[in-house]
Amino acid sequence: MSGITIPATGRGPDNAPGKARLRRPIVEMPPHLIGEVARLGIGQKGIIPLWYGESDVATPAFIADAAYAAMQAGETFYTHKLGLPDLREALGAYLSGLYQKPIAAERVSVTSSGMNAIMLALMAILDAGDNMVLVDPVWPNCEQSALAMGASVTRVSLEQQNGVWQLDTQKLLDLCGERTRAIFINSPGNPTGWMMEREQQQEILDFARENGIWIIADEVYSRLVYDRPVAPSFLDIAGSDDPVIGINSFSKAWAMTGWRMGWMVTPLWVTDSLFSMIEYHTACVPPFIQKAGIAAVTEGEWFVREMVERCRAGREAVVPALQAMDRVHIDPPRAAFYAFCKVDGMEDSLAFAKEMFLKTKVGVAPGSSFGPGGEGWLRLCFAQDPKTLAVAMERMAEYLQKN
Amino acid sequence: MSGITIPATGRGPDNAPGKARLRRPIVEMPPHLIGEVARLGIGQKGIIPLWYGESDVATPAFIADAAYAAMQAGETFYTHKLGLPDLREALGAYLSGLYQKPIAAERVSVTSSGMNAIMLALMAILDAGDNMVLVDPVWPNCEQSALAMGASVTRVSLEQQNGVWQLDTQKLLDLCGERTRAIFINSPGNPTGWMMEREQQQEILDFARENGIWIIADEVYSRLVYDRPVAPSFLDIAGSDDPVIGINSFSKAWAMTGWRMGWMVTPLWVTDSLFSMIEYHTACVPPFIQKAGIAAVTEGEWFVREMVERCRAGREAVVPALQAMDRVHIDPPRAAFYAFCKVDGMEDSLAFAKEMFLKTKVGVAPGSSFGPGGEGWLRLCFAQDPKTLAVAMERMAEYLQKN
Repeated sequence: MSGITIPATGRGPDNAPGKARLRRPIVEMPPHLIGEVARLGIGQKGIIPLWYGESDVATPAFIADAAYAAMQAGETFYTHKLGLPDLREALGAYLSGLYQKPIAAERVSVTSSGMNAIMLALMAILDAGDNMVLVDPVWPNCEQSALAMGASVTRVSLEQQNGVWQLDTQKLLDLCGERTRAIFINSPGNPTGWMMEREQQQEILDFARENGIWIIADEVYSRLVYDRPVAPSFLDIAGSDDPVIGINSFSKAWAMTGWRMGWMVTPLWVTDSLFSMIEYHTACVPPFIQKAGIAAVTEGEWFVREMVERCRAGREAVVPALQAMDRVHIDPPRAAFYAFCKVDGMEDSLAFAKEMFLKTKVGVAPGSSFGPGGEGWLRLCFAQDPKTLAVAMERMAEYLQKN
Repeated sequence: MSGITIPATGRGPDNAPGKARLRRPIVEMPPHLIGEVARLGIGQKGIIPLWYGESDVATPAFIADAAYAAMQAGETFYTHKLGLPDLREALGAYLSGLYQKPIAAERVSVTSSGMNAIMLALMAILDAGDNMVLVDPVWPNCEQSALAMGASVTRVSLEQQNGVWQLDTQKLLDLCGERTRAIFINSPGNPTGWMMEREQQQEILDFARENGIWIIADEVYSRLVYDRPVAPSFLDIAGSDDPVIGINSFSKAWAMTGWRMGWMVTPLWVTDSLFSMIEYHTACVPPFIQKAGIAAVTEGEWFVREMVERCRAGREAVVPALQAMDRVHIDPPRAAFYAFCKVDGMEDSLAFAKEMFLKTKVGVAPGSSFGPGGEGWLRLCFAQDPKTLAVAMERMAEYLQKN
């Protein structure tokens, strides 16, 4: 570990008058609260980090080997902006198999992560002063990318009914105004594990079509589902010209968080604009990483199944243990790999998560990271070794009894 | 080669009324003219592609092996947003050795390419309606990233005096208005090979300090110089709090164009904001790519020297041959790896480049890609095997005699 200082918060000082300044939305970007907890553990051994959205499994060797083989074959040059044709074809075939509508390879753009796909989508859509409606609690990046474009964000909150997360669709539609250009839906959802069902998707799609509003469908957890093989997708119901931007990633299903590769499915005429936009963002994804992606998509189905089973075991290790804790409320998530739980009497989830980490070495994400409605909650990633999770649960139970 | 269609231009159709739309600056993004020539050669063997800014040398094995070793060690997870501390330290030490001022590692942010660094910088600085002054002829991406933010771009053109590119500094400063927030300078310059000297840099820095304007110093060709070891850099003269954003890349000096990794040097308080912004763009550069970067910076000096010598030989193979052609005017570039030459009687460089490629299989970039002042010119990348370049020169000479 080198001695370099890591910024505490990501927040710059106020712009000094008469000096070269940064844009207001940039200076006002709030600190990433998960990072604020996680930095307490930088360089420490023996901690149990459940704060980030990734498993403890490294990328399988057949994927890494495909990347290395490509490097050795000299695939180290600039490449296709929208992705290697073979990867786009592979993704088109993969998605066509997964969903109820065929997805043409031409509608698939390979991006430098799912996050990058979100930024590209919002930069393509949101002018300063435009509005985006966002279903929350949700990971903070969706909102921040819209704010970075100078847009406003209106939140519509999921609500728990009998312990199950529900979206009031009418409330969402009512919040769409004159300047609303996009509805952002992350389903299966981080942190809640909420999954939007077909009927609601159809209702929102009909509204979006009629009103010329984009649906940004962030479906990166689409494969991590416990009650069916794949989550309902807007791609199941949207025609190829519908205002839907489907966003996905190699990160979660293939344990490739560090590889920074995702993809978008858009109407064909949007792909044409992405051809230019990608040039001005990252130009292309490294060709050898794309070759690794081809290996993942065409040979990695066994690994996705293993990952789902691993997450299911993690869920078993965590959910009953949390339910057994007096002050904790949680219902088993049907998808994604997070336990998002309410803790009675906890008023400041950030302070609580920090303190609990210092005492127990169990790292969790504070609920307040996911919007104002997340205060009072904690998120734990259970895509981990069940034995480690059992230790974490013991420590957390003990900590909660004392604090 | 798969049968997928590659977009012709990157231009989407006009936004249909009453439909979900894209932002005007996105829809209006012009086609990338170099790509328009290059797509004529997709999948063809036996062509001589001198259109892109990259050498014909694959990344050296010691760099690729460092990446693979990191993958095998399980470094496939999310990592530090600003870059691995060890890489930032290595870059700080490298830059401190190269320039006349020490550069603290804390001021270095690792980005997903030099291009990505430019987009981050312009998103941090330019609100819609702001202005950027840009020295041209210059590669098109600088302008397009600013336009994507809704800013305007004012061009100030280099002029040839006795065959040498010169910038009229006063003209540049006079063009800076009320809304000018940035001056973009790519030196050593693509496509011209122009190099800004210390005196002009000082003049512009003084003006920028006084007027609160950012200097975006795109210095990706800083090591590819033929009359001294390294090009004059704004980092030589700027204090750590001066309004200078230095942009650089692993692409050119270490033959890593396909790796998509660059870096920025900024005032420390800007690094704090980049900590947030990078999270919302690509989150981080793959850790194994960063390990490859550490190998490049700490063990790759021999390779940079080889690359300079290779480019010098390429320059020798190209410049006298071009000078010998009747209709062609060129002066030896002092830096970068491009021959930018004027062709008498050529009125449409795009049409000319396409036609010449179809007849000779020699691919060059049309001058009009680099701004209105570039019309009538062609750009050839000479970071190539001198023997191949000699063949290209023969074919081009023959073609010019006939057309």
